[in-house]
This record gives sequence, C-alpha cells and structure tokens, in this order.
Amino acid sequence: MSLRDFKTIEERRKFIGRIKKLNLPAISIYPKGLKEAQQSNCENMIGAVQLPLGIAGPLKIHGRHAAGDYFIPLATTEGALVASVNRGCKAITAAGGAVVYEESAGITRGPVFKTNGIGGSLKLKGWLDKHFLQLKKMARTTSSHLELEKVDTRIVGRNVYVRFSFDTQDAMGMNMATIATDKLALFIKQETGCGYLALAANYDIDKKPAWLNFILGRGRQVWAQATISQKIVADVLKTTGEKIDKLAVEKCLLGSAVSGSIGFNAHFANMIAAIFIATGQDAAHITEGSLGITATEIIDNQLYISIYLPDLPLGTVGGGTGLPAQKEALGLLGVAGGNRGKNSSCLAEIVGATVLAGELSLLASLAEGSLASAHQRLARKK
Amino acid sequence: MSLRDFKTIEERRKFIGRIKKLNLPAISIYPKGLKEAQQSNCENMIGAVQLPLGIAGPLKIHGRHAAGDYFIPLATTEGALVASVNRGCKAITAAGGAVVYEESAGITRGPVFKTNGIGGSLKLKGWLDKHFLQLKKMARTTSSHLELEKVDTRIVGRNVYVRFSFDTQDAMGMNMATIATDKLALFIKQETGCGYLALAANYDIDKKPAWLNFILGRGRQVWAQATISQKIVADVLKTTGEKIDKLAVEKCLLGSAVSGSIGFNAHFANMIAAIFIATGQDAAHITEGSLGITATEIIDNQLYISIYLPDLPLGTVGGGTGLPAQKEALGLLGVAGGNRGKNSSCLAEIVGATVLAGELSLLASLAEGSLASAHQRLARKK
Amino acid sequence: MSLRDFKTIEERRKFIGRIKKLNLPAISIYPKGLKEAQQSNCENMIGAVQLPLGIAGPLKIHGRHAAGDYFIPLATTEGALVASVNRGCKAITAAGGAVVYEESAGITRGPVFKTNGIGGSLKLKGWLDKHFLQLKKMARTTSSHLELEKVDTRIVGRNVYVRFSFDTQDAMGMNMATIATDKLALFIKQETGCGYLALAANYDIDKKPAWLNFILGRGRQVWAQATISQKIVADVLKTTGEKIDKLAVEKCLLGSAVSGSIGFNAHFANMIAAIFIATGQDAAHITEGSLGITATEIIDNQLYISIYLPDLPLGTVGGGTGLPAQKEALGLLGVAGGNRGKNSSCLAEIVGATVLAGELSLLASLAEGSLASAHQRLARKK
Amino acid sequence: MSLRDFKTIEERRKFIGRIKKLNLPAISIYPKGLKEAQQSNCENMIGAVQLPLGIAGPLKIHGRHAAGDYFIPLATTEGALVASVNRGCKAITAAGGAVVYEESAGITRGPVFKTNGIGGSLKLKGWLDKHFLQLKKMARTTSSHLELEKVDTRIVGRNVYVRFSFDTQDAMGMNMATIATDKLALFIKQETGCGYLALAANYDIDKKPAWLNFILGRGRQVWAQATISQKIVADVLKTTGEKIDKLAVEKCLLGSAVSGSIGFNAHFANMIAAIFIATGQDAAHITEGSLGITATEIIDNQLYISIYLPDLPLGTVGGGTGLPAQKEALGLLGVAGGNRGKNSSCLAEIVGATVLAGELSLLASLAEGSLASAHQRLARKK
Repeated sequence: MSLRDFKTIEERRKFIGRIKKLNLPAISIYPKGLKEAQQSNCENMIGAVQLPLGIAGPLKIHGRHAAGDYFIPLATTEGALVASVNRGCKAITAAGGAVVYEESAGITRGPVFKTNGIGGSLKLKGWLDKHFLQLKKMARTTSSHLELEKVDTRIVGRNVYVRFSFDTQDAMGMNMATIATDKLALFIKQETGCGYLALAANYDIDKKPAWLNFILGRGRQVWAQATISQKIVADVLKTTGEKIDKLAVEKCLLGSAVSGSIGFNAHFANMIAAIFIATGQDAAHITEGSLGITATEIIDNQLYISIYLPDLPLGTVGGGTGLPAQKEALGLLGVAGGNRGKNSSCLAEIVGATVLAGELSLLASLAEGSLASAHQRLARKK
Repeated sequence: MSLRDFKTIEERRKFIGRIKKLNLPAISIYPKGLKEAQQSNCENMIGAVQLPLGIAGPLKIHGRHAAGDYFIPLATTEGALVASVNRGCKAITAAGGAVVYEESAGITRGPVFKTNGIGGSLKLKGWLDKHFLQLKKMARTTSSHLELEKVDTRIVGRNVYVRFSFDTQDAMGMNMATIATDKLALFIKQETGCGYLALAANYDIDKKPAWLNFILGRGRQVWAQATISQKIVADVLKTTGEKIDKLAVEKCLLGSAVSGSIGFNAHFANMIAAIFIATGQDAAHITEGSLGITATEIIDNQLYISIYLPDLPLGTVGGGTGLPAQKEALGLLGVAGGNRGKNSSCLAEIVGATVLAGELSLLASLAEGSLASAHQRLARKK
Repeated sequence: MSLRDFKTIEERRKFIGRIKKLNLPAISIYPKGLKEAQQSNCENMIGAVQLPLGIAGPLKIHGRHAAGDYFIPLATTEGALVASVNRGCKAITAAGGAVVYEESAGITRGPVFKTNGIGGSLKLKGWLDKHFLQLKKMARTTSSHLELEKVDTRIVGRNVYVRFSFDTQDAMGMNMATIATDKLALFIKQETGCGYLALAANYDIDKKPAWLNFILGRGRQVWAQATISQKIVADVLKTTGEKIDKLAVEKCLLGSAVSGSIGFNAHFANMIAAIFIATGQDAAHITEGSLGITATEIIDNQLYISIYLPDLPLGTVGGGTGLPAQKEALGLLGVAGGNRGKNSSCLAEIVGATVLAGELSLLASLAEGSLASAHQRLARKK
Repeated sequence: MSLRDFKTIEERRKFIGRIKKLNLPAISIYPKGLKEAQQSNCENMIGAVQLPLGIAGPLKIHGRHAAGDYFIPLATTEGALVASVNRGCKAITAAGGAVVYEESAGITRGPVFKTNGIGGSLKLKGWLDKHFLQLKKMARTTSSHLELEKVDTRIVGRNVYVRFSFDTQDAMGMNMATIATDKLALFIKQETGCGYLALAANYDIDKKPAWLNFILGRGRQVWAQATISQKIVADVLKTTGEKIDKLAVEKCLLGSAVSGSIGFNAHFANMIAAIFIATGQDAAHITEGSLGITATEIIDNQLYISIYLPDLPLGTVGGGTGLPAQKEALGLLGVAGGNRGKNSSCLAEIVGATVLAGELSLLASLAEGSLASAHQRLARKK
C-alpha cells in the first residue's frame, strides 16, 4: 500500500496519519481551490502548509510598469521582517518614492552536447549561430508564449554547453523552456550528429547561485533607487545618511568581499523569499533571485541608495501563481494573470522597490544599533 | 489611517481589501492557531498563504539520529518535484537506505569593529583569543540554550570582522545569536575602546551564498550516501549507473565550473526549499542551505552516490517551527520541539537523505532523457 | 640625491651599491640591447635579473596557425618543471600531436562613468549602443593597429561600468587600449554630460582572477586536446589512462570545487609563467592567463585530454617582446614581431599545446605517485 | 638526437640554434654562476632570459622585521610601473612610512584519500586529529627546517581532502612540504588502510586563485597601512584624498564585485610579479600572491590607505633565490639566505609595503586622470 494508490488528499493524509499515529488538523486547512494543486503542482498531496501573510506599505513606485502606491504582500515566519520593510516603505514613500527599472534577460535552459573533439565543438557552435533563426522558429512551435532570444555556448573539449535564452512573457517559463529545449536539442542532434547528453547541464544555471547568471542576467534584471533627505533619515530611520552610507561599504561591499560571497547586499534574501512565496513563485529560485548589490552615496547632503537584482526568475501565470491565496496576493498588486509580459515586468519592478525598502531599513537599524533590541523585544513576546 | 492602527488580522485584511476593491477569501483560510503568528512571526498580518504539502517516501535512513522509514513532507508548487523525490526514495530504500552523517558547525553572527589601525586590529584579535572563556561565559547569560563555540576574525585595515559561532541546540538560533552578539560586542567595545560599527557585517555570512560558509560550515553540515545496484537503477530509475555517474561529472562538476557556481549539484534548492517551508524554517536560508556537492562513483558495478551540505541553518523550535501545520510536519518526522539539539540533528539528517533522493532521481531523468516528457505530461494536464 | 638624477644604468647601480655597501656583479650582466629597456620598459633601471631558460620539446602541434614540431622556451627557476613538460611533449608527439584552436576575445579596458541615476545610466547604455560605429571609428584614430569590437556595460545605480573590447593584432595591447579608452571616454563625457570617474575601474578586469574574464573571455581563448593510446601512457607516462582520467575528476574538478577556486586544472600557472616570462609577456598577466579547465575522458580505451584557456592576454610586439632574449625566444617559435595578428594567434596556440603537455605529465606523475620522489631526487642534488 | 643527450648549456643552445637556423646571442648572456641552475632549477637549460631590473624607493617601512628605508628591486618589462611605485614610495615615506604586519599562515600540501564511505571518511578525519602529534613528529624527520602546524580536512563522499600546513622557515617550502606529505600520506595509508589517491589534489590549493587560500591564508599574510596628509596627496600625487577614497570604493570594491573577482584591489599583480621575479620567487605563485584587498578611509582630513595580502608564498632560500642576480636583489633588501624564518618574514613585510605604494600611486593616477597620458608619453618614446 503506497501513497500513489490513493486518489484524494484526504485519503492520503489519513493514511500517513494512521501510520504515524498522528492527527494532522492544521495541514487539512486550505481554501477549496487548492485541491487542484494535486493535478499540476504537488504529487502525493496531503494538505497544505500555511504561511502568515503580512503587508508592508504603501510603497510609492515609479516604474515603467508599476506606478502608484502599493501594498506589498510578504509571506514570512521571521518576526520583525514585515515591520522593517514597512519602515523602509515609509521612508521611501515620504521621500517621493522608489524609481525602478526592469529589463528582461530571458529564462534559460542549458543542455550539453558531445562532439568528436574541439574541432567538432567549434563546428557545432558555428552551426548554432548559423541556424539561429531556424531554431527560433522551431521553438515557437512548442508554445505561442515562448520566443528563443539568444544562444550562448561554452566549449570544454568534446562538451558543448549551450544556454538557450527564452522570452516567456508573463510566465517564469522553466517548463516551457524545458519542452522547447528538448525539441531543439533533438533536432540539433539529428542534424549535426552530435551526442545529446542531457537536457539540463547547469549552464542554465538554474536554482544555484552562480556568476554566470550574475553577469549575463537571468529572468528579469531590476534596478531601484531612492534619494532620502537627512530629515527623513532622522525622523523615520533614526540615524544619519552618512552612517548608512559608510555601513553599506563596510558591510555590503567589504564584508561580502572577505566572505567570498556572490551577494553584495544586506539581506535581499529576506524580501525575495517573502514576496516569492506570497505570489506563488518557485521557492527554489530564491537562491538566485537573492543575488545582487546595494550601493549608496551621499549626494548634496541626501542619502542616495540603489539596489541591483541581476537574476530574478518570476511570473504571474503558471506554477504556483494560480493557487488561491497566491493569486489574491498577485491581485493585490494588480498583476494577476497574463498580460503580454507586462504583468511580470510590473511584478519585477515591485520586487525591486520592496528589496530597496528592506535594504534601507536594515542598514539603518544596523547603523543605529537597534537590531538586537528589536529582536530582544520580539523574543520577550514569545 | 495605516495598517498599524488595526489590531486584528481580519480588520487589516478588510482595510486592504477595501482600498484595493478586492475580496481575499483564500487568504482568510488558515488554522485557528496561526493567528498567534502576528505576535512573533509576521507584523501587519492579514491572513495566510497556503502551499500544497506533498509526501515523498517512505525513505529508509541510517543516521546517528534519524533511523527508520520516513515520510518526507514537501511544500511546493512545482509539479513533478514530489514525484521525482519519491522515485529517489524508492530506489534508495530498495537499496537498503541512505547512510547519513551530521555535524554541527554552529550558527554565526558577524559584527565589525573599528580600531585605530592594523596594530590595533591585531591587538583586538589577540584580546578576543585571550578572553574567549570570558566571552563564552557572558554569552551564556543571554540564554541557557546558547553556547559560544568559536570566534573567527578577519582584519582589513582598521576593520575587524568577527564571526561568533554558537551552538543553539534545537533552534536555528539567529535571534539568540543576535542578542548574545550585541551583548558581547558592547562588552568588547567597553573593554578595548574599539568602535563597534555594526552588529552584522556580512562576515556571518547570513542568507547569502558565500565561500566562507561553504569552507567553514554554518548551521549543520550533512553528508549522505547510498549504493544502488544496477538492477535497481534499471528497474526504478530506468537508466544505468554509468550514465548517472558520467552525467554527474558533466553537469554537477564541469557544468557548474563553467558557470561560476558555488553549487556543484543537480538541484539541491528544490528539496531544501520544499522541506524548509514545510517544516517552518526561515525561507531566506534556502540561499545558503542549497550550497553543496553531489559526487558519484561506480564501485563494483554499483552506483555510489553521495551529497554534501556544508551550510544548513535549521531548527525544530522557534521561528516558524511552532506554527500549526509546520509543527505537524515536524511531528510527522518525529522531531517537533526541543530535545537538547538532537531533534535538529535528526532533521538535518533527514534533509540530507531527502536531498540525496532528489539528486539521484533528477540525474537519472536527465541521463535517461525523460525530463522534458515529464514536464510535457504535466503541461498537458493544466 | 635620488635615483632619478642618474642617466645611466651603471650610475644608478653604483649609487645603490654604494648606499647598501654591495657589489651587484650579476645584476650587471645582460646583453647590450637590453639597455634600451630603460626607455620604455623599466624606469630607474640598474641592470637585469636572469632567469634560466630551458627547452621542452619537440612538441607536435596541429593548429590553424601553429603547425609542426616546436621547441618550447620556458623560463623558470622551479626544478623538474621543464623535465615534466618535456615528458608531456614526448607523449603527445608520440600520439600524433596536440590539436589546438584559438579565438580572439579582445583585450579590454573598463572605465566607469557617473550619471544622475539609474535612468541616466540606462540612457548612457543606450547611447553607447547607438554610437558604437562612431566610437569604433574614433578608436581607430588612436592607432592603426587597434579596432574597437565590443562594448559591454554593467549598471549599479549611478555607476556605469563599461568594458571596451579591442582587437590589437599582434600586441597584447593594454597601452593602446588605455589610450583609445581615454579618448573615447572623454568624448562620451562631452557628448552625454556624464561624469568620467576613472579610466580603469576593474570591469576590464585586468590582472586579477575573475569570473567575468572566464565567462566573456579576454585576450585569446585557446582549446587544446590530444588522444593518447594506453601504450604511450604506459611507456612514456608510466601509468594508465583510467588513473589519469579518475584523478582529473578528483583533483581538477572536485578538488578545485571544495577549494573555491576559479582554476579547474592541475598547474596551468607553471607553464603560463614559464612561457610568458620567456617570451616577454607582462608577468602580471599570469594571474588571469592561468585560469581554465582540464578535462579528460576514456574513449575507445584511449585517454582523451583537453585544456581550455579562456583568458590569455599576450603579444608578439610591444612590451617585453622586443627585449633581446625574449625576441630570440619568440624567434625560436617563429612568431617574433607583428604579422596582422597571426603571430599572436600562433603563440596562443603554442601556449595551449604546452599547457596540455604540462597537465598531462603532472596528472600522470600524481596518478603514478612519483611526484615526491622527483622532488626528492632534486632536493638531494642541491 | 634529443636535448637530453647534451651535457652543457652551450651544446644544447647550439643544437636548437642549428635546427631552427638561429643564433641566440642574447640568450647566451648570463652570469657565470647561473650555470648551476641546470642542476636544480631548470632542465634542458640553453641559457637565460634577462629582465630589466629597476629600483623604487627609498620606502620607509615600520615592521616587526623590516625597519628603515628600503630600495625595492622590481623586475619588469611594463613601462611606467617602476615610476609609479616610486611615486607611491615617495608619498608614503614623506608621510612617515608604511606600517606593516606579517603573520605566517604556513605552506600547504593537499593529498586526497579514498575511504569506503562517509563513515570511513569521518573516521579518517578523527584519526588525523588524534594522531596529529605523531604526524608532526614524523614530518620533522623529513627536514629540520619543517614543522607540521595544522591539518584541515574536507570530506566529499569517499574522498577525504587533507590540507597539511607547514612552517618551513625561510623557504617557500613546496618541495619540503611535498616530501613530508608523501611520507605522512604513506604512513596514513598503511595505518588506516585508506587509499592514497594522490599527493596533491588541489585542496592545497597551489598556484590557483581560490577562496580557500583567501580565507585560511597561505604562505605569509601581510597587512600594510599609511596615513597621508592632504598636502602630500596634493604635492606628490596631484589629487585629493577624497578622490582616492571614493575611487577605491568604485573600483576596488564595486568594480571587482561586478566582475566576480577574487581580487579587490587596483593592481597587486604588478608589484607582486615584479618583486617575485626580482627576488627569485616561483613566478607561478603570482596567481595567488596577487589576491587581496585595498581599503581606504578619510580620517581627520587625511587619507588612510591599507592593503591586505592573505596568500603570499615566498622565501629567501631555495628555488630561484640562490641564483646570482636574485640573490643580489635579496641582498639589497638585507634578507638573502636563511635566518630562522625572519628573513622571509622581513621580505613579506617589504612586499606588503611595496604593494601599498603601488596601490596608492595608481589610484591617484586614475583619480587624477593621468594614466592614459603617462602611457601616451611612453608610447611616443618607443
């Protein structure tokens, strides 16, 4: 008797409960529509895990897609995070808002081919360049929402690592990219006679922190900035612009340098994780979505702060974005569903502005020395 | 009128709903006990996001803490993941189980101090070495569950980056570590006259992928292995040991090398994300928890596969581990609550075995060429 | 009285000798033509340091530029190196020679500009794209040997890091690139109103080991391979192909992975250093020239070995290539002086084949277990 | 007829000259004593390559070993380098000198062992810890100048990567370390029954840029600093402290961060290469010797600049240090030969101070905008 033999969530939960002699009352609580997740999101489903959803904001955003005041949904279990981001939103909004820019870098899939030697590998590279338009056309036949945009290659001996980069509109797109890549790879194998070793050989590079994604970009790239007057820094953030500016160098740059980190920021991962989970993104993408840089300057006696997210795979359709609460969270941001890529671009801008707010607030706490006391208050509450 | 003015989850949700002209029916569904999350896990809470919870297993584990057959709770929205891990569990269990080892590396917090120059910096380093026992004693006064175990330093000019490493028993422990570090740092400042710039200056290095954590370890370190006969590889995984072994080199090692990755594995992040979220871990730690290596060999015509997780911050008390469904998921594994560090060690071992199962299964799919078709079946379902 | 006050090498040497109460007889030994180095290679010159020059080879090479049997000049003070490379040459030549491919990646210079914000930064990026042909034309006015080929940018807030990539024919080209970049940057500043912060801001990235150069390439990129029969492995290298193949994974891939290295090879640096110094390259480029990967396979019971050098800045004119002995070393290889880029391409191929020989030989020594005894013999000699 | 058949340098040179139809008059010029290099430094020796030797300084140094005014020997073919370092020396000396600290990190050798599984691997690790004193004693029997100081291990499945760290007094020590490691490894194999795969498996990690060496240190670690008044910055360096301070962040930190570099400095490699070659160091060590950080601050309206070199393998005995001109260069610095480790410590301090001078001067040139014009003047000379 195995889990696979059961047809309903309830039966599976009861089966497991019986074996382990446990009731699982909390796991059994979820909106009616979540049931369908067992079809396409989660095999052997026995119920749900609920994460608290908090709201930071309003956060004023000036983007090409996002414009106006946003309430940011953050799913987290880490006390103080929502409050901290909220404080950042307050400072930024008081200062006139976050200016945000977004560019699509494309979602990637990276198969590896085997040739008869370096000469064959370079020949395959040449073949790929020459047949780009044909590959592009063929990719289109796998989905009307997918467009092959770029092919990068890396040759090591008889191995040719390929990185297909696709525009997948509002979908994060890994499934589409996978299906398209398989079709392309089989065609390449057939036409060139090269061996097609594997569909995904880490040159994508999917769900791992890597310099390749940092340098070439993946998913969306986002930049956000705000200029905060000393008065707002003092009133809302209880410190000075100079202290934040100095700390950003000592912590985000020098501190990360001595640690051999790919992340040159204060805590991108906190905001990325909370907003990714709230909006139904693939949580494994937090690994790469959290890469990036925070940079500050003092300009005309004001604090200028900016963040850069080079590798943000996200979507507003597909994956977990259609689940009940996740869809509502996207709805809160006005980006639920597909809209020719614009919803995902808008979401990416919102993510950028939120990360900016979180960075500003934590750097201020650290500069002022209040981080431990915040955690202490929290600890006492428990 | 701001979110902070409301006292209940419901009031906040209605306020947001009114502004955005939205009902949020799904977000309003959660177990009764989740309400308390607004006290210590999530400010401005308006409800919950539910993630589908699936089960992989049984997975036979031979660890120092985990022993027996486990059903692994995985919270995910990525179709095919649970099925894939489940297949890995089947193969490993059929082969006699996963052998797992775990060691505590300690949770770290990394303040930075400012001295009057390199001489002063080296003096501070010497002072820290000399006063280690005193610092250890002082750390204990902040919590009976915390023990200072190690102090690492890195000097760059006038900056002294310090990395306090704590044993925090069954708690992931960042809050405890933060409070203890602040006390230690204030004492160090007072005794040595050095400037205490910031409590957390990225030499921890918390929630960022970094070589420092890979090399020194953070949280728990886990190794897991299994030896799979060719028959099981053929029957359950539909491929051969040689193909998996070859692919592990081409993808996990060479493919990651050309990508400048810190991760030398197939998809650790998928399993880490799913089990971290299911069991109430801090989702931002997925960034570092996903670091590590998969290595294979063919020994006596069998497939030997092992994984190594150098940086696994996790806990069974505190944070999100006490939330209703998360606690049930921990209960499923028999590790809910505190048990002098043993529950977290056990959980770490289970995580290691699960990651092993996921790696084995994906490598097999890729070696066999079935990944795309699995995604295609899935896509058709939708 | 300072060094700058003296006009001749001899006067300077005597001045220093007097102060330090030393004769410097060895430093005074050098070919007559080296004197001119004080004009363009070395200020405050007091004489010369002589490095022993050994020869490995003949090494049979099949490249697009290098073809035939080569004697490789290696300047080194490390005993056993020339002998080891020589053994690799013997094995490769016996096996029919090294097959080598070379591609120009361009030498880079990386200024940084300051804009009024991210919007301005993206605008500058757009401006650079739009004016590429104009910049290309302007670059040509600074030297008839230089061609601007590519412009990469990276935006972090108000900073725009630019990476100009130039074809500089047979020159390594950093001086030319520097002069051209300054002209381009002043023009960009004037036309766009952006601040021109610095001519070289590490996005080149010159003389530092970096993933950017690994991924985008710099100078020349070279691949080399050889297929060695088991008989030759046994006769010349005293081990087996399987042992070498296994060790290449354990050392070059896994060993480098656990060390957080950018180099996935056995000892590229040894060959790069020796041939760079012998042929008058800039020795500081050894840092980046040594990056790269060694990969092996067993194919049809033969050992296939390949190396990949992504970042090889070198030249056959300019810098130290015109100095007397260095020019003779280049002459030995038939690549002294300029030849529309072909001499440098040929030299790059020779470097690749030499690195291949060195890797093969060291891996064999390690696989066989003879490294220590070789060093021991050597130690006894002293 | 092969090179190995000849006994003298001259015969070999003539043999090669005959084949290639070349005279090699410059290669034939070297001091009489260099001949002996064919015994222990360079097989198949045919003569010498001469590098111009320039002098920067005097540079006032305040170290624990180096104290006083030093003339720094720099072997380089890169025009403007000596002049630039010289200018840095002038500014630093005028400002009272460089303060330098040095610590020994030990030279490392990294064998790899094969066990029967992770359990066996952990057991081997435990065995190594337990038998440390015995290993230390045994290491001593291989050389009276060598002391085993530390053993680090890294386990990946059945592989145990070991990093033996030795104090080798005034020798760089790789040969000694290799011989000692082989003896230890054979003993370990015999006592534990583990497989001894290879003597050097990149966990050393020798001659490759790597985070492991950055984090744990290798050879010597050096810190140097100077505080320069605005007047000296203006008079000698023609710019302002603020400009240098700002640029150090934009270039050395942010510029290196976006480039995925291990080096966070302006041009360490230039000084390291020049002084390493001048003093007979192993030029392949330039790869790791060039790692490190430059950090600046403005303190009380003065420029504070510091450098950090974590990985400096060097010596004053053995290898190329005994060659005629190299020995004279060491003599110039008062550190030729062995002196219970003190000469190498002194040399490391001098290297640190020299690197500091070079960084200061280049940052000033870039801040002022004079780099290109310096290269242009130079180009005209040629």
